Amino acid sequence: MQMSRVRVHISVSADGYVAGPNQSEENPLGEAGERLHDWVVALRAWRAPHGLEGGEVNASNAVVEEAQANIGAEIMGRGKFGGGPGPWGEDPWRGWWGEDPPFHMPVFVLTHHQREPLTLSDTTFTFVTGGIEAALEQARAAAGEKDVLIGGGADVINQYLGTGHVDELELQVVPLLLGGGARLFEGIGLDLELEQIRVVEAPGVAHLKYRVVK
Amino acid sequence: MQMSRVRVHISVSADGYVAGPNQSEENPLGEAGERLHDWVVALRAWRAPHGLEGGEVNASNAVVEEAQANIGAEIMGRGKFGGGPGPWGEDPWRGWWGEDPPFHMPVFVLTHHQREPLTLSDTTFTFVTGGIEAALEQARAAAGEKDVLIGGGADVINQYLGTGHVDELELQVVPLLLGGGARLFEGIGLDLELEQIRVVEAPGVAHLKYRVVK
Repeated sequence: MQMSRVRVHISVSADGYVAGPNQSEENPLGEAGERLHDWVVALRAWRAPHGLEGGEVNASNAVVEEAQANIGAEIMGRGKFGGGPGPWGEDPWRGWWGEDPPFHMPVFVLTHHQREPLTLSDTTFTFVTGGIEAALEQARAAAGEKDVLIGGGADVINQYLGTGHVDELELQVVPLLLGGGARLFEGIGLDLELEQIRVVEAPGVAHLKYRVVK
Repeated sequence: MQMSRVRVHISVSADGYVAGPNQSEENPLGEAGERLHDWVVALRAWRAPHGLEGGEVNASNAVVEEAQANIGAEIMGRGKFGGGPGPWGEDPWRGWWGEDPPFHMPVFVLTHHQREPLTLSDTTFTFVTGGIEAALEQARAAAGEKDVLIGGGADVINQYLGTGHVDELELQVVPLLLGGGARLFEGIGLDLELEQIRVVEAPGVAHLKYRVVK
């Protein structure tokens, strides 16, 4: 039996940003940040789990299907879940994704502010105030034999990378220079050894998959 | 007849550095920076123009041969040429490469300090104090119908990118996190539009080639 792994699959600009400059509550991906995801939202492999028909089929489909496969839980930062900083309030934000979020699995949201779990369709968001180690422990328990996805944003991914928890890292490198924003690998360096395990060329994106050497 | 183009082909870490942290005169590539070039120095396509026999043949060979083809002149910064900052002195530095440098073409070195041209075998180094536009004009004239390579370091490449002079950009992405050093694309951003034209998987490197959209 293969051990449960911790995985990252993230779209990144050619200059290393996972969101553009001038991020705000209204524009969480920052200036031009949504262009990081143009390649994926056009794909059948992305549209199907979002309940959408049609879509392109190209070399990225197999990459996206592989990235989605065998994931049993996701961890995300509060920025990705959304709703702004501070206490959740009486009518708390329910995420960007409507009543049927595309996760279809347990999601653990890192936050400084306590909140009861939120179930929308077959996705339950659990709000973790105990930090990244506590969130990983809960996500591993929820995922069972499956893997845990670190869904972002950059600060959350960087924290899990920096503490040596990530086993697999896939960069979807987009031909775009954002010039600022949320930078992947900030604060990481030579302590983390990568082994290239696969490169795939696809329209408008290069898929670079690495194993973190331990 | 195809117009002469300005090209960049550069090894870069997965976190976007073309040299590691703590660069010095003794260690111009910085800490672990030499690992950026492990993939290429092992290749037959690199060893042959350096007068060395043997070498590996893999998917990178065609990429390197293509990168070397049709180059008529190179522009480099003083950091790449070496010898430290300040006036050249009476017994000036003659480069890192011995009496038969691997360029075999005119090389233009950006410097603040005047110096007579230096010819070593079939490479002539011309020292340009008039700035990047003057160097490009001289390099274009020397290259004729061939292309001009912007050879580095990062600051020189970033200056030519930022002024819109680069037509083609190839990143040789190495599975390595340097965590600091000379950062490619520093100061560049959304003004520069990239179009992905080719991705090649090779042992220990991913070759990502872009056209700069004008």
